[in-house]
Amino acid sequence: MTVDPVELTRELVRCPSVTPEEGGALELLETQLRQAGFRSWRVDRGGVSNLFARWGDKGHAKSFGFNGHTDVVPVGDPQDWSVDPFGAEIRDGQIWGRGTTDMKSGVAAFVAAAIDFVTETPPDGALLLAITGDEEGDALDGTTALLDWMEAEGERMTVCLVGEPTCPERMGEMIKIGRRGSLNAKIRVQGVQGHSAYPHRAVNPCHALARLLDRLASEPLDDGTDHFDASTLAVVTMDVGNPATNVIPAQARATLNIRFNDLHSGASLTENLETACRELDEAFGTRSTVEVKVSGESFLTPPGALSDLVSDAVEAETGVRPELSTSGGTSDARFVKDHCPVVEFGLVGQTMHQVDERVSVAQVEQLKAIYTRILSRYFA
Amino acid sequence: MTVDPVELTRELVRCPSVTPEEGGALELLETQLRQAGFRSWRVDRGGVSNLFARWGDKGHAKSFGFNGHTDVVPVGDPQDWSVDPFGAEIRDGQIWGRGTTDMKSGVAAFVAAAIDFVTETPPDGALLLAITGDEEGDALDGTTALLDWMEAEGERMTVCLVGEPTCPERMGEMIKIGRRGSLNAKIRVQGVQGHSAYPHRAVNPCHALARLLDRLASEPLDDGTDHFDASTLAVVTMDVGNPATNVIPAQARATLNIRFNDLHSGASLTENLETACRELDEAFGTRSTVEVKVSGESFLTPPGALSDLVSDAVEAETGVRPELSTSGGTSDARFVKDHCPVVEFGLVGQTMHQVDERVSVAQVEQLKAIYTRILSRYFA
Ligand SMILES: [Zn+2]
Ligand SMILES: [Zn+2]
Repeated sequence: MTVDPVELTRELVRCPSVTPEEGGALELLETQLRQAGFRSWRVDRGGVSNLFARWGDKGHAKSFGFNGHTDVVPVGDPQDWSVDPFGAEIRDGQIWGRGTTDMKSGVAAFVAAAIDFVTETPPDGALLLAITGDEEGDALDGTTALLDWMEAEGERMTVCLVGEPTCPERMGEMIKIGRRGSLNAKIRVQGVQGHSAYPHRAVNPCHALARLLDRLASEPLDDGTDHFDASTLAVVTMDVGNPATNVIPAQARATLNIRFNDLHSGASLTENLETACRELDEAFGTRSTVEVKVSGESFLTPPGALSDLVSDAVEAETGVRPELSTSGGTSDARFVKDHCPVVEFGLVGQTMHQVDERVSVAQVEQLKAIYTRILSRYFA
Repeated sequence: MTVDPVELTRELVRCPSVTPEEGGALELLETQLRQAGFRSWRVDRGGVSNLFARWGDKGHAKSFGFNGHTDVVPVGDPQDWSVDPFGAEIRDGQIWGRGTTDMKSGVAAFVAAAIDFVTETPPDGALLLAITGDEEGDALDGTTALLDWMEAEGERMTVCLVGEPTCPERMGEMIKIGRRGSLNAKIRVQGVQGHSAYPHRAVNPCHALARLLDRLASEPLDDGTDHFDASTLAVVTMDVGNPATNVIPAQARATLNIRFNDLHSGASLTENLETACRELDEAFGTRSTVEVKVSGESFLTPPGALSDLVSDAVEAETGVRPELSTSGGTSDARFVKDHCPVVEFGLVGQTMHQVDERVSVAQVEQLKAIYTRILSRYFA
């Protein structure tokens, strides 16, 4: 049995699975996987549909997992596209459409590799696929729902490969072995309203907030670690909304986003921010609060057997030795890392989330070949 | 002829002259002044009505001027008042209603003093009244319209007394001999939008703005001068309005209000702000602009004959030697100062612009007595 990853990508693109819509994408995959001897379960939670499939025995010590998503971000105004965003047209050696890069081609490549592999050389082990329909949304009922279900069912991956696009420009140049954590902090500074002509009778929360934000933005969090870039902090908004120039407002607000490496945790950063607020309040006479939401803690799968396995396969197929990186935003690997060692490898992600998203036909074929090599070596 | 300033205040309060409405207030005054031998002119501009009245010869070297306004700020929700805001009820020794303090009582007191004075002891000189209906609004067609008209007509005040409330708590305790200037500056910092996970690829305008505002708010403009408090700067709003925590915004804005003494001018402060923006842009790679609107330059009528005249009259009547101050917001004195020496004296202003605005009956009578003493001494 041979599944063409390019055709499978095109079929998936034609399923309008704009998050959180299933759009027929998981059903399509489930049908093909069952035909190839996989058992499958739909894991639905909170209005989101997810797919778990296994070939081989439950609980096998050599259980290789793939993780990916079939939901896609909205297309925006279809008039802005050069093609039908759900048409999956091939033009200039590329498949065009929403989700071609992120990440229906990745899912198609690992599903095709998995089906071919178990059909042609049935391994002594198990192949597990955890495919979600809620990665681009709030991700509350996607991979976490699958992992919760697997935990309850005694389904376990020994290692996991997430098929998100990981290469900045050239195929094969980057594997992600971890990710920085991410948190958002909403800061509110409460002062005392007053008249602009009598600032000594007021407590100006804008002045306090400006001081705090300048301090937070100026002091580096760290200089990076062995496998991580330096942590970063970005103030993304600051809002008062006072239209009266003769009034000193009572409250000022700001939100900042921190991307943090393994020197920090959501808890340690929250404590730092709370300390900064208390110091501010002492200096200015304000009352400040900070509300932190941690999107994901930082994590690292230290370089070793799994990253070697993937790197070797990538190099054998592309001639490029991939960099082991922890750069970029967050991905569902932040959930999988609590379950088993996880790395991420996929194709070049330049057009993801954009108008005229497209993927090279050759790269999709190459990605399937790489995934196949990984399976061969893992089960060798 | 004797005009009762309390009754005149009450009649004026019953005219609903919410800025810019005339409400019958100027007409009422004009009628009484004409009966007392004043000549009068209505100076209307931009939909606003103003009143100029003169007793005595045009261009007399001893021309004493009074300036005030009959327009009032809105009452807000009448339900919040304990009384009819336009009822001018007398209760507990106070006249209650919108404009009782700011400044129908002041106008009533100087009109009553002027009429009594010219009737009882006709002076060798002239008495000029410039009463506007546009002080509480944008003040573009009020006292400035009167002064423009006077300039064109050859009408000239030798000195001028503005009858705004000037006493913080006790009757007689403060004369204003100048005012700080005031300007508003809108700052826009243009950066380069980007993803929060890759702050080095963006130029974050929030970070630049926080630095600028902290610097401006932290560095004192001066330590005050002989007759002025220190200049002050208040950031009144800072706004970005970015709802996306994963996006570094392109632009951040702030508005600040500066109250400045005679060490500065609108022009010098504008230049300082522009320099600060240019330094910011060099440090951050931003493009910043500042848009300044000067509401009034600072001015001072140095202590001397006029302030002595007023102070002596206040002390004789109240037993209190008034402080010569330049504190507080702006007033129409900022326009008059280009025409002739100007000082301000009026009663206690605690309830101005508030719900249940009210004025002490005794203070209104005392104010008329003080204004009468000032006239006697001026023309002596
Ligand atoms: Zn994705
Ligand atoms: Zn006033």
